[in-house]
Amino acid sequence: MKQTVALVITHGRFGIELLKSVEMIMGEQQDAYALGLCLGNDVDELRQEVERIVKESKETGKEVVILVDLLGGSPSNIGLYMAKMYDAKVITGVNIVMLIELFSSRDGKEPAELLAAVTGSGIEGIKQFP
Amino acid sequence: MKQTVALVITHGRFGIELLKSVEMIMGEQQDAYALGLCLGNDVDELRQEVERIVKESKETGKEVVILVDLLGGSPSNIGLYMAKMYDAKVITGVNIVMLIELFSSRDGKEPAELLAAVTGSGIEGIKQFP
Repeated sequence: MKQTVALVITHGRFGIELLKSVEMIMGEQQDAYALGLCLGNDVDELRQEVERIVKESKETGKEVVILVDLLGGSPSNIGLYMAKMYDAKVITGVNIVMLIELFSSRDGKEPAELLAAVTGSGIEGIKQFP
Repeated sequence: MKQTVALVITHGRFGIELLKSVEMIMGEQQDAYALGLCLGNDVDELRQEVERIVKESKETGKEVVILVDLLGGSPSNIGLYMAKMYDAKVITGVNIVMLIELFSSRDGKEPAELLAAVTGSGIEGIKQFP
């Protein structure tokens, strides 16, 4: 079973706080990164930082799942570039349910099965009451 | 058309940062609140703060949509209590796509139609690449 690295990229700091919130619920996670693009930040610096994490992870034989806030904009553009160049996997529309599923399941599922579980959980986690 | 108040409640600070990230993309939003439950916080104080916002909104004739991180845990328990007591609407699994839809559509849609659009956009915003 390949190890899987989780990397969250969002506009602003919410992905960084999202990872902290998940760790508040589940405890500290290994191979988990979060980066944000804030006003005044250089997109190219963010891309380089993402590329460094993705390359290092791939070189040590790990899968990389990049979770971004939405399709469109720099976070997803960077993610899709990493998908093309390094065979990273990208999931858009990140919510906390996906991350909980990813951290709960990544040691026991093959990559394709893991990705389906993560996107499925994210979708099923969206419910309206009443 | 009733005005709609958006209130995000999450474990930790990620909902607070999520609202800031949306405002970074869309500009400042009126009738938009975000609260977080951090380690050491008193759940009852959070509930009272939520209740104050919901009551004031309802008393001024506004609808309230509470977006929480996940079903289960204090944020959703507080939201569901507000649904029962004050007819607030609750959506779980919040992501940035839902908030963008809510802020884009809340002035032009009836409540039921708005809720369906928000949950639908949240779900449709979750995609896997490649």
